[in-house]
Amino acid sequence: MRVNPSHPRYASLVIREKLVDGLKKGITSQAGLLAHGRGETFDYLLGEKTNHFAIKAIKAAAACLLLAKTPIISINGNSAALAGKEFVTLAKLINSKVEVNLFHRSEKRVKLIENYLSKFDRKFILQSTYKNRTFIPNIQSPRSIVLNNGIKKADTVFVPLEDGDRCEVLSKLGKKVIAVDLNPLSRTARNAYITIVDNLTRAMPVLIEEISYLKSKKPYYMNKLLDKYDNKKNLNSAYDKMIQNIKQVL
Amino acid sequence: MRVNPSHPRYASLVIREKLVDGLKKGITSQAGLLAHGRGETFDYLLGEKTNHFAIKAIKAAAACLLLAKTPIISINGNSAALAGKEFVTLAKLINSKVEVNLFHRSEKRVKLIENYLSKFDRKFILQSTYKNRTFIPNIQSPRSIVLNNGIKKADTVFVPLEDGDRCEVLSKLGKKVIAVDLNPLSRTARNAYITIVDNLTRAMPVLIEEISYLKSKKPYYMNKLLDKYDNKKNLNSAYDKMIQNIKQVL
Repeated sequence: MRVNPSHPRYASLVIREKLVDGLKKGITSQAGLLAHGRGETFDYLLGEKTNHFAIKAIKAAAACLLLAKTPIISINGNSAALAGKEFVTLAKLINSKVEVNLFHRSEKRVKLIENYLSKFDRKFILQSTYKNRTFIPNIQSPRSIVLNNGIKKADTVFVPLEDGDRCEVLSKLGKKVIAVDLNPLSRTARNAYITIVDNLTRAMPVLIEEISYLKSKKPYYMNKLLDKYDNKKNLNSAYDKMIQNIKQVL
Repeated sequence: MRVNPSHPRYASLVIREKLVDGLKKGITSQAGLLAHGRGETFDYLLGEKTNHFAIKAIKAAAACLLLAKTPIISINGNSAALAGKEFVTLAKLINSKVEVNLFHRSEKRVKLIENYLSKFDRKFILQSTYKNRTFIPNIQSPRSIVLNNGIKKADTVFVPLEDGDRCEVLSKLGKKVIAVDLNPLSRTARNAYITIVDNLTRAMPVLIEEISYLKSKKPYYMNKLLDKYDNKKNLNSAYDKMIQNIKQVL
């Protein structure tokens, strides 16, 4: 399928292409297509742009990631296909690593995604082995499988497209979870420390830009930025925006 | 993937299974999975139930289909996979036919779907041939290809999961379009004569039930029912419901 740039939903269709391409490569899954479709509707209801509440969350996330001692970037198939390169850039910027963590897990798919990401810069991709693998209890999916030198020891987990139960468990373990989730009503959105309600492909360049800017600032400045941030209040702005957009059609 | 009946989203996952199964059969498409995901979010925002406004629309649709002189049922891959049997039952009840009409069209897929539906009752499935095929102008997709003895001559088109542009064109041609669309904001929803804002798998049994009941009534009764129905007002109820459900999370 070729996408015509004049199509009113061009940006959205280009993203779809990436996922379908990922399916051919074995990186994304059919369930991933369905999940992405769900996200598309929220994106549509939010106006398909990076709203002010998303920018607020991104700034707080930038501060949080720079202040973290052991941050980790946890990504799945869809994330890899949509913004693989950007995650590696982020890892470099905050001196972190990328860990592959899948709901529809198979060893083959984990390796395929690790190899795909390694093309951008192998040094920043954790390689899953039986030796460095462990479990996080109370997660009802293979996303419980994590790496000792990754999510297990992390104090902050940056995780786009998260599952509700894992977000809750990680938070209870005292980890700061930064989620990117287009559904502001989700369990993930409500349980994360910071929730960026935006499309991953739009949010990542903004986050990278923000971190590059904040890097030169003093920790005091970052702490203040983080202290000021109120995730619940910010999510309320996202709900308001959706309601406002629905009303506009009336 | 086996679905556990205790899963909180069991019904939704069973529906997904049907689409993934359809993909194996060549009936549904990858784009269909994405489109379904979009619908899932609206279903979630609408409370995943057949709301009062959906029942109202279904009653009006039942009357409209029974009053129609040449009704046709136009279905695509997702519709066939989700409720193929129910469409054939509907066709029998209203003495109509089912026509396959696809956005991601290939002759092979049209035939696969026709054959799949024919298993329920071949008599009620229109078979596409080069001879009985024609075009409806101003539709920017292969959905413009229709059958002379089907959509072309129909006065009423029952079409779940419709595209916005086709709905507009069919309406302009004087045809009454009855759509089933989970997105009450869509162009289809707003241009259709009657819009059933509900999940197809829930709406179809209710529609069949309603038609069976209405069949014994006089045309006067059906006309009154149809006259009373206001699609715009009904859509407003759907918007209100979404807004109400979003606010409940606050």
